[in-house]
Amino acid sequence: MLPIISPHGHTQAAWFAQNRPFPDPAQLLITPDHYITRMLYSQGVPLEDIGYAEANDPRKIWRIFATHYYLFRGTPTRLWLDFAFEELLGLETPLSQENSDFYFDAISTKLQTAEFLPRALYERFNLEVLATTDSPLDSLSDHKAIRDSGWKARVIPTFRPDPVVDPDFEKFAENVATLGQMTGEDTTLWAGYLNALRSSRQQFRELGCTATDHGHPTSRTASLSESASAALFQLVLRDASDAQTNELFRAQMLTEMARMSLDDGLVMQIHPGSSRNHNRQLYLRYGRDIGADIPTPTNYVDALRPLLDQFGNERKLTIILFTLDESTYSRELAPLVGHYPCLRLGPPWWFHDSPEGMRRFRQRVTETAGFYNTVGFNDDTRAFFSIPGRHDVARRMDCSFLAKLVVEHQLTEAEAAALAYDLAYGLVKKAYRL
Amino acid sequence: MLPIISPHGHTQAAWFAQNRPFPDPAQLLITPDHYITRMLYSQGVPLEDIGYAEANDPRKIWRIFATHYYLFRGTPTRLWLDFAFEELLGLETPLSQENSDFYFDAISTKLQTAEFLPRALYERFNLEVLATTDSPLDSLSDHKAIRDSGWKARVIPTFRPDPVVDPDFEKFAENVATLGQMTGEDTTLWAGYLNALRSSRQQFRELGCTATDHGHPTSRTASLSESASAALFQLVLRDASDAQTNELFRAQMLTEMARMSLDDGLVMQIHPGSSRNHNRQLYLRYGRDIGADIPTPTNYVDALRPLLDQFGNERKLTIILFTLDESTYSRELAPLVGHYPCLRLGPPWWFHDSPEGMRRFRQRVTETAGFYNTVGFNDDTRAFFSIPGRHDVARRMDCSFLAKLVVEHQLTEAEAAALAYDLAYGLVKKAYRL
Amino acid sequence: MLPIISPHGHTQAAWFAQNRPFPDPAQLLITPDHYITRMLYSQGVPLEDIGYAEANDPRKIWRIFATHYYLFRGTPTRLWLDFAFEELLGLETPLSQENSDFYFDAISTKLQTAEFLPRALYERFNLEVLATTDSPLDSLSDHKAIRDSGWKARVIPTFRPDPVVDPDFEKFAENVATLGQMTGEDTTLWAGYLNALRSSRQQFRELGCTATDHGHPTSRTASLSESASAALFQLVLRDASDAQTNELFRAQMLTEMARMSLDDGLVMQIHPGSSRNHNRQLYLRYGRDIGADIPTPTNYVDALRPLLDQFGNERKLTIILFTLDESTYSRELAPLVGHYPCLRLGPPWWFHDSPEGMRRFRQRVTETAGFYNTVGFNDDTRAFFSIPGRHDVARRMDCSFLAKLVVEHQLTEAEAAALAYDLAYGLVKKAYRL
Repeated sequence: MLPIISPHGHTQAAWFAQNRPFPDPAQLLITPDHYITRMLYSQGVPLEDIGYAEANDPRKIWRIFATHYYLFRGTPTRLWLDFAFEELLGLETPLSQENSDFYFDAISTKLQTAEFLPRALYERFNLEVLATTDSPLDSLSDHKAIRDSGWKARVIPTFRPDPVVDPDFEKFAENVATLGQMTGEDTTLWAGYLNALRSSRQQFRELGCTATDHGHPTSRTASLSESASAALFQLVLRDASDAQTNELFRAQMLTEMARMSLDDGLVMQIHPGSSRNHNRQLYLRYGRDIGADIPTPTNYVDALRPLLDQFGNERKLTIILFTLDESTYSRELAPLVGHYPCLRLGPPWWFHDSPEGMRRFRQRVTETAGFYNTVGFNDDTRAFFSIPGRHDVARRMDCSFLAKLVVEHQLTEAEAAALAYDLAYGLVKKAYRL
Repeated sequence: MLPIISPHGHTQAAWFAQNRPFPDPAQLLITPDHYITRMLYSQGVPLEDIGYAEANDPRKIWRIFATHYYLFRGTPTRLWLDFAFEELLGLETPLSQENSDFYFDAISTKLQTAEFLPRALYERFNLEVLATTDSPLDSLSDHKAIRDSGWKARVIPTFRPDPVVDPDFEKFAENVATLGQMTGEDTTLWAGYLNALRSSRQQFRELGCTATDHGHPTSRTASLSESASAALFQLVLRDASDAQTNELFRAQMLTEMARMSLDDGLVMQIHPGSSRNHNRQLYLRYGRDIGADIPTPTNYVDALRPLLDQFGNERKLTIILFTLDESTYSRELAPLVGHYPCLRLGPPWWFHDSPEGMRRFRQRVTETAGFYNTVGFNDDTRAFFSIPGRHDVARRMDCSFLAKLVVEHQLTEAEAAALAYDLAYGLVKKAYRL
Repeated sequence: MLPIISPHGHTQAAWFAQNRPFPDPAQLLITPDHYITRMLYSQGVPLEDIGYAEANDPRKIWRIFATHYYLFRGTPTRLWLDFAFEELLGLETPLSQENSDFYFDAISTKLQTAEFLPRALYERFNLEVLATTDSPLDSLSDHKAIRDSGWKARVIPTFRPDPVVDPDFEKFAENVATLGQMTGEDTTLWAGYLNALRSSRQQFRELGCTATDHGHPTSRTASLSESASAALFQLVLRDASDAQTNELFRAQMLTEMARMSLDDGLVMQIHPGSSRNHNRQLYLRYGRDIGADIPTPTNYVDALRPLLDQFGNERKLTIILFTLDESTYSRELAPLVGHYPCLRLGPPWWFHDSPEGMRRFRQRVTETAGFYNTVGFNDDTRAFFSIPGRHDVARRMDCSFLAKLVVEHQLTEAEAAALAYDLAYGLVKKAYRL
């Protein structure tokens, strides 16, 4: 079995730096997994019952989850969890209301054993690379601790500058000031701000980082003059800007990030098209990431043009595009990545990281973009236990797609075998420069 | 075989109130079915030849239809009609130009027999509930007659207030005045208007109604203050409004309907996204519903936000969303209904009520929303004879989807069996509170 | 095997007029094929290496292509080329880096033989009709030469007036003046301009032309008064117009073309939705058609309305619609062509001319529009050698779709056989009036 490369995700470096046992089953598998909390909430389960109360009882949370496990029929969550239960935890009877306590106790016990410590699992999962996602405001002390520990694993950070490049981010101006302090640059000025970002990227690179990530609401880019950029920066920094101005600043920053990537070689990832915190009441009560991010129609053809006008033909630049709007696969994304040397298409993302989502991805993308303008699989997860199951699903779906092409005489078996290797392993290493 | 629940459709209560024989085959099966007239018209058949002349010859209409029956190859109309011909009418040789008269005579004869009277067919079809769609301006006398007749069937009205909440509806102001007379409320004022609607809903509920239905051009909602709403009402009532103002009024009325539903428990259905009466010449000549309604791109994420900001987290409210824009299934609708407790997703609608349409629906929705945020099947038909065939197609397609999940080891056979029951029977009863 | 009807494509009449050997393999198969150059370019191959240098070495180009042939795995290009290699050229070992020179030599040799001359291939391909695409500024001398040669083949022009009806076209005003000279009309005036177009259409018709083609950025149409049209014409002719005005002029010209088609019987084809020359740097260096045309979201329902308000119900008019935005298949196009007598839906176009693209087309269109509102297959190619392979793929995919309907008992075998004939041969002859 090929090792797992996980070039984009949301696990925590602290787990591996500290290598302490994971907490109880509910805190490990349920409360932090927005795929799960979202579904339970949609069917009337109060968030207070599944970990969002002042005091939480893990066993009760687990019971509620077990009682509602049927809701996940036909969803990838069910596949990932069953894989984890059976393959990782040795629990062969399907989870149900009846065996809820048995599951809870069995998992709780295992989590205290040496073979379920984070580093042991990393090795058992056959991970070759595991990338986390980190703010420039993060000290990266956990990543340093891992490196200094002498443990032979490759847990690397990813540079996600949203908190310091998106004027709509909570405490943007404060964040920019902090970035200045961390890098010794004067971030009250445009030039110093750019230097601070360069410096921060360099610090990430020293800890193995090979990629940046950008979670903007849209994929809009801009191509302003230096003086216009500097003036715009002053505006957003003083909080004197409106929604449109903030959008323009984010747009310009994507172009600036591309320019820096040409210099330092970091691969860009653009993840646009999510309407964040759609449920206003939940957001006011619990803050961000509570599962109410809803995709919106996303444009790439016009939005990326300013950046592509400048850097589109650069062979040394790699920009990986993602989408939550599947109507763009065949209409915009496959034609774009099937032409521009700097563009690649990321795997099915978030709501589309699922068997049918993967099938649609290959069906709609391959005939225009081919396989080699795609970049393998991302698990994109904060649920560490789901990583093997997620890669297992992705590999099976890709092989199923290849098998169909063989049966239809579109590929030889040897070609399909070579492609299976590339889709699981070769392309991701190349695209992410790992 | 499970009984049929038909919670949304356009059959006529008068049929069951009067229980008289259906008219000739052409009037029963062709002229009122816009799926059929649309296709014939697209291929050059004049509407005058199929029932829209001053005087119509049913036998000639039937001949034209039979001659063109090949046009329906690959369409659901063909499946529904073949089912009706063979299973209901015992006609086993496929319809063709040659046997046109034989069909016409055979059906005509049967329609005069006792077993083809409306009530007998209702029982033969194994209907448990049949909902009609009705205007608040309808006296519901047919529904009352059915109730008073002692016949043990459940034919119930659905509250469709478009004529009195949509300022673009023909004779809107007149309709609002009539509503005032019918309810004894002063509908020249906002408060009286709302009271009239509440009163009308109550009358519907007394005849078994459990749901409302809203056929707005978009799914836009609003969250205006009471005084702003009242002022807006005066504007639209005096016909002093423009297209944008009318849209805003409809938007506010969706929110008002949700507020009333929280009180009286009626389930809301929203059917947006149709550009009605697209063919101007036909509309001027024949009026609405002549088959020239064309779907348009539809937004839900932004449009529903004002309503959801107020009521999105209410567990006692049920709003069932429909779409004619399939690109929203995976992008907007599955994420929305997979999060908000008040939202559910209706079955494939209208142009998408077809085998491939149903397949796409399950493929694109299930992995994010699961099965339990959907609500079973609607036949949505004015063609009474097509009801068994329509439900048969839906059940087969759902079972085909479940079988695939079993074959792929995503579900056990027992789970698939439980789901088959829920998709055909359980979910619709629960969602529509039947 | 049924003859091939190719009613829309981009082969050159000069080939058949002159009947000279095709040049070397690279010039024949690689450099002019934007499906190939686009993919190679996306993976970092410089255009200078594949035919866009001052001096080009065909053998080296062929080697680069052979080395990168694996990039086309899973794409239709691979299917078309393998078909041409094996079925037309007798090369049975798959192309690879190793046998690159063998391929180059073998093809070069064959191209010099009599059986590989253009006319011999036309006959070998079993072509019944081959339509080219031509500007009104073209003298059509090659078409005349073919006619005058006595060769019994049907190579016909298609009237594509973009250069003289699109104010954004290079040298628009100059083109309009040239058109005036060619037709003896005063094209400085609106009436003379329309007369010139009528006259040009007549010249095309005399050489067998049965169709026009319109490659506008959108499908917008307009319904201006004669005086407004005349004023608009003066504006665009004097280059005093902006982007919006140019769009309005194109919109009005689609309506004018429909009016002329009602008179002279030419079938209209509308190909909207491509953002042309998206890669600015390549466009400035190499000009148009270098592979950087990217599809954009396309609207039909509102855009076509002005034209349809005037001519939508005309049975003597045929307008064939195409799309690069697959989300419109089931949402807009199938409902439109399934209603308006003048509308038909063209086959999957460009990026969607592929097995999965064809599958999606039939799956999303058939249930609403049926088969008989579609018009068979277009190869739309400038790659003459790919024509048999392209039609072979299309026929196989249509038969695969029909076979599925038979297996599911939606069609009888006899119906499927009749449809197979119509989809490959009958519908295209009828729709294009051939």
